[in-house]
Amino acid sequence: MAGKTIVLKRCPSILSYASIVGKKEGEGPLGNEFDIKVTDSLLGEDTFEKAEMKLQQTATDLALQKAGLEHDDIDCIFAGDLLNQCIGSSFGLRQTNMPFVGLYGACSTMALSLAVAAIFIESGVAKHTISVTSSHFCSAERQYRFPLEYGSQRTPTAQWTVTGSGAVILTDTPQKAYIDKITIGAVKDLGVKDANNMGAAMAPAAADTIKRFLTDTGTAPDDYDKIFTGDLGTVGSELLYEILEKQNIDIKKQHTDCGMLIFDIEKQDAHAGASGCGCSASVLASYILKRVESGEYKNILFCATGALLSPTSTQQGESIPSVAHLINIKYSEK
Amino acid sequence: MAGKTIVLKRCPSILSYASIVGKKEGEGPLGNEFDIKVTDSLLGEDTFEKAEMKLQQTATDLALQKAGLEHDDIDCIFAGDLLNQCIGSSFGLRQTNMPFVGLYGACSTMALSLAVAAIFIESGVAKHTISVTSSHFCSAERQYRFPLEYGSQRTPTAQWTVTGSGAVILTDTPQKAYIDKITIGAVKDLGVKDANNMGAAMAPAAADTIKRFLTDTGTAPDDYDKIFTGDLGTVGSELLYEILEKQNIDIKKQHTDCGMLIFDIEKQDAHAGASGCGCSASVLASYILKRVESGEYKNILFCATGALLSPTSTQQGESIPSVAHLINIKYSEK
Repeated sequence: MAGKTIVLKRCPSILSYASIVGKKEGEGPLGNEFDIKVTDSLLGEDTFEKAEMKLQQTATDLALQKAGLEHDDIDCIFAGDLLNQCIGSSFGLRQTNMPFVGLYGACSTMALSLAVAAIFIESGVAKHTISVTSSHFCSAERQYRFPLEYGSQRTPTAQWTVTGSGAVILTDTPQKAYIDKITIGAVKDLGVKDANNMGAAMAPAAADTIKRFLTDTGTAPDDYDKIFTGDLGTVGSELLYEILEKQNIDIKKQHTDCGMLIFDIEKQDAHAGASGCGCSASVLASYILKRVESGEYKNILFCATGALLSPTSTQQGESIPSVAHLINIKYSEK
Repeated sequence: MAGKTIVLKRCPSILSYASIVGKKEGEGPLGNEFDIKVTDSLLGEDTFEKAEMKLQQTATDLALQKAGLEHDDIDCIFAGDLLNQCIGSSFGLRQTNMPFVGLYGACSTMALSLAVAAIFIESGVAKHTISVTSSHFCSAERQYRFPLEYGSQRTPTAQWTVTGSGAVILTDTPQKAYIDKITIGAVKDLGVKDANNMGAAMAPAAADTIKRFLTDTGTAPDDYDKIFTGDLGTVGSELLYEILEKQNIDIKKQHTDCGMLIFDIEKQDAHAGASGCGCSASVLASYILKRVESGEYKNILFCATGALLSPTSTQQGESIPSVAHLINIKYSEK
């Protein structure tokens, strides 16, 4: 069968990474992990969409600065976001003059952009790449749900879109953290129609990709220090366990969800947890990669999940297709 | 400088391709070139968005059928479209169970999806890939401009979004037509703000990418049988000539624009020409590739251009960033 897990030979390595988040994220349990915490949700801009563009710019520039690289050193940037026509990325990065690959994978975009960047490095056509994505609570709410001014009530299964961005620079030169394997997910749709319960829509995609990875590689959850999902939240994570248990796979011991790490769900009133492209991106480009670089985690799975709905598809009575892409990141002594 | 034109060593080759278009496109000068011409703009579905999903499904399935391949033989599918959250692709292809890379490059998506697919093959991680994209006049009009029922008048610089889709299957085994080089474009924004004059917004991106390709490869327009742009239309094509002439590059003899080929602009009232992801995709996956396979064209450039605007960015007074990706396709005797 085609579409198997990809084993990389050149070990595309993580040269640097940067994260920026909003006020609520900065006040959460990972507050001290992020590079930049902003308190003005507009970041000095006049719209939330322009603020989101600035999130991507800032994360990208900081990752470059940490790596000691300039825009001109980058062979290709891989970016996407949740806004219609992905304007957070294309507008946010238009001043950089870097070759630009626009991607759309909803909240799976961080794993997708790392996967495609890693394959550019594997092929030998790129030496340095950037993968970046973002989301913004205020731009997402008014696009997908209601303008904030309505003060709409949130359902218990609803997730809170993270205001934040994460950027990761890959290089063909060995570093402490590197990408060893990739599983590109297929679109899954089990008929969930509730746009306020995206965890349920995404769980089957996560289960499919994780199972495919474990089967292809002949490994078990115990072989990994951690298995991170992107933003399934509490509802989606429970469903993920259920689906995998039916296939005799138990990931409970290793599993953590970025959407449950970033907020104190009870105290911060985040209902089923966090979501948004910026959720797994900012958690990866801070908390997770720090712990791989230090050797605390030597072998992890990062599986970001995306619900591929649009307001139009929901209005037309469609169910919610989802996708999950997986990256196996390892630690090396160098 | 990074981001140079990519020279491929494995010669990712074109195994098969398929095209489907709507009634107006079928009545145009290329009518006899397309595989399927539909007269019902809904394709039997109840919305234009669902009709667009069906365009991608049909083109994909026909390309597979021509190649004698099944869904399971495909390592990865690369797809995108103009609809918010690219639902034409993700919903259209959700039944295929193929690893799915979602892309967003507006009308440059066909070149982008071929470029990324070719690099997957170059890296050795894929043997067979599909690149597919689509657009639909009715779904694009109501999303970007006005519902058709308003009967809004079109400006002279406006372009007509093609109803159509094109799919191309690449393989790592040599075929008559293959991809030799790739230039991934950078986002360009020269401040054009008129959403009804996308040719003007896209011309600088096309000029930048074509110039970069010619400089990197040390070649001149005379070295190519044809230089196709995606959908600059009449206005954008004239501007492209002007910009390039200032840099002593004259492409007039070799240049043709897919957006001017597909309609008889006068007779079919297409104003400045055609546009949409489906424009360059359906022209490539019919008229152009047939002529490369026959040896009539031995060395061509296919440079698809995308205007990366969204209705939200336009309403917020933003200018229109654009991008152009270029594929150098060659003929081989095998």
